[in-house]
Amino acid sequence: MTTQKLEIMKCTHKKQKPESSALEFGKYFTDHMFIMDYSEEKGWYSPRIIPYQPLTLDPAAMVFHYGQTVFEGLKAYRSEDGSVRLFRPEENFKRLNQSSDRLSIPPIDEAQMLAYLKELIRIDKDWIPTMPGTSLYIRPFVIATEPTLGVAPSRNYKFMIILSPVGAYYKEGINPIGIFVEDQYTRAAPGGTGTAKTAGNYCAAYKAQERATANKQAQVLWLDGMEKKYVEEVGSMNVFFKLNGEVHTPGLSGSILEGITRKSVIELLKSWDIPVFERRISIEEIVSASKSGTLEEVFGTGTAAVISPVGELLWKDHKIVVNNNETGALSKRLYTELTGIQTGEQKDPFGWTVRLEDEE
Amino acid sequence: MTTQKLEIMKCTHKKQKPESSALEFGKYFTDHMFIMDYSEEKGWYSPRIIPYQPLTLDPAAMVFHYGQTVFEGLKAYRSEDGSVRLFRPEENFKRLNQSSDRLSIPPIDEAQMLAYLKELIRIDKDWIPTMPGTSLYIRPFVIATEPTLGVAPSRNYKFMIILSPVGAYYKEGINPIGIFVEDQYTRAAPGGTGTAKTAGNYCAAYKAQERATANKQAQVLWLDGMEKKYVEEVGSMNVFFKLNGEVHTPGLSGSILEGITRKSVIELLKSWDIPVFERRISIEEIVSASKSGTLEEVFGTGTAAVISPVGELLWKDHKIVVNNNETGALSKRLYTELTGIQTGEQKDPFGWTVRLEDEE
Ligand SMILES: Cc1ncc(COP(=O)(O)O)c(C=O)c1O
Ligand SMILES: Cc1ncc(COP(=O)(O)O)c(C=O)c1O
Repeated sequence: MTTQKLEIMKCTHKKQKPESSALEFGKYFTDHMFIMDYSEEKGWYSPRIIPYQPLTLDPAAMVFHYGQTVFEGLKAYRSEDGSVRLFRPEENFKRLNQSSDRLSIPPIDEAQMLAYLKELIRIDKDWIPTMPGTSLYIRPFVIATEPTLGVAPSRNYKFMIILSPVGAYYKEGINPIGIFVEDQYTRAAPGGTGTAKTAGNYCAAYKAQERATANKQAQVLWLDGMEKKYVEEVGSMNVFFKLNGEVHTPGLSGSILEGITRKSVIELLKSWDIPVFERRISIEEIVSASKSGTLEEVFGTGTAAVISPVGELLWKDHKIVVNNNETGALSKRLYTELTGIQTGEQKDPFGWTVRLEDEE
Repeated sequence: MTTQKLEIMKCTHKKQKPESSALEFGKYFTDHMFIMDYSEEKGWYSPRIIPYQPLTLDPAAMVFHYGQTVFEGLKAYRSEDGSVRLFRPEENFKRLNQSSDRLSIPPIDEAQMLAYLKELIRIDKDWIPTMPGTSLYIRPFVIATEPTLGVAPSRNYKFMIILSPVGAYYKEGINPIGIFVEDQYTRAAPGGTGTAKTAGNYCAAYKAQERATANKQAQVLWLDGMEKKYVEEVGSMNVFFKLNGEVHTPGLSGSILEGITRKSVIELLKSWDIPVFERRISIEEIVSASKSGTLEEVFGTGTAAVISPVGELLWKDHKIVVNNNETGALSKRLYTELTGIQTGEQKDPFGWTVRLEDEE
């Protein structure tokens, strides 16, 4: 663990904070940001918290040309008593390094990153919104900055953390969405970058999202890239199916992002003695289960929505309605439990939350 | 075609130019660059040539997070008589728009882009190196700049062109390389972004390049993402095989970049009455052809190297030596013909080159 002194430069003018009710996702940013540089000679160096400000980069910086970048997404929640909690942040920093490995980006000390993040949040604590369902979204990311056009890993990087107060995902209570089963575009294939949280995976999905929207569905259900047969993910969420009292989710196929909410849902279900299986699930099987009446619930899991019930699936000319297009009991229970733990309203038997106030 | 006035702001201090012999690929940049902005209200606006300078971008600019970016690569060549030629530039701008379509980026007027490029090169004409084999590499690119973290197409972009004098690809004459047939990592799968020139495709390849290097080979030969059975591309080049007097190249499978050098080679071969086929080619077939003695030549095609003969292929435990690890006659002929047309030393029966000096 590098023990470099964290430099802190506070802003002189604080920005005006938006109303809690006016918040959107990732639109407003707090007064400060964290930044640290990398060079081959020095490793990661010069960690600093500075006023939120534009980056100055050479037009040849590699991130613009060859997309060498990784990111994470997690949230800080303010609880009723005013304390602030992070949800499994060490998992995010672990995943950041896993993503970096796939993209040939040098790893960062995970404990150190968490310490920097905590310090940044402490400085911008006033920005954490208080209305139920709101939170402070945290975006750590790494970009390649060397200004050369040779196609090769960069020799310089920047690691940054920016913070954005975000509104409630469900403004009118948890509600099912419709999803479009994509049979044409591919999110990821084995041997590709699907297991990494890297920029290129996301823009690649816009065309599919256009198709979903044109088909009046909110999100895309991705099938595997090889056969377009097996279910992978929903938009930027992992996906679960309740079939005949048991819960099934696609296994980590090598092209799925390993969600931290997914992991937590699996652990919760196990603790509730609800059978849960990670395996290959074909879309045909879901159609059959729907026909035979064993498809009880479908839901997505991810940091943004936590649990997102699916009320309808559209695959080619099959239209599947799930649980009468209503939020199922298990989806609701998972949502209540997880958000309860995250905000500190419920006990945290797993030790998942990290309180900002606790000394490390 | 928008008819917006091109604004030109020249630099006050010219940079020192590197020695022709010291040039590398994409390391030095000229005195000026072209830049233009996009917003939903205005479309593409404010085209300007300004001194080469850093970009100032919000840390939330979408390019850093979701990789929405496309680029092109082409060259300007100075001929013996001092005139300057571009090689099929309209093809690059057409492909830029095709890439943009895949990435949900708004298209740019192609004729206009060419006019801006010509003007930029005229201003930085002194930067075009003169030594044989050298050229001015041209990098047009688009980046998403809207500072929001919602996963959706950006509403703001920048289109830029930067110029870099580059050294000769072959310092000691055209020479064969060894390639490693990648059987683990995937460059692109059907339905993905392989047909587009977008950042995420390139960083995804670094791990495979590491494996190639570890196996003492210069470049990667990509197999298809579905079955790892059919040949797709070599590094950032298309690939051709001369089998028994005929030339074969992978067809446009939906995961291959349609190279402009590839297209030109196909047209040249046809004009020479050499049979050329675009089709699926399995790596097994290449192994068999090598064994039976019908594998005569292998070469890559791309803007950087023009023609890159392959002398050796390593696939699992098969090691294939091609043409005694020497540059084949056809590779040499194609190289001489193409570079001759590009530099103006040979006639240009196809009308492929665009002279900077000619008025539009
Ligand atoms: C592609 C993708 N799948 C799944 C998820 C869910 O992961 P997590 O639960 O860690 O937020 C995310 C990110 O949020 C994602 O980007
Ligand atoms: C992936 C890839 N394939 C092939 C090529 C060859 O294309 P071109 O001949 O247009 O340079 C390139 C780019 O140069 C490329 O990036």
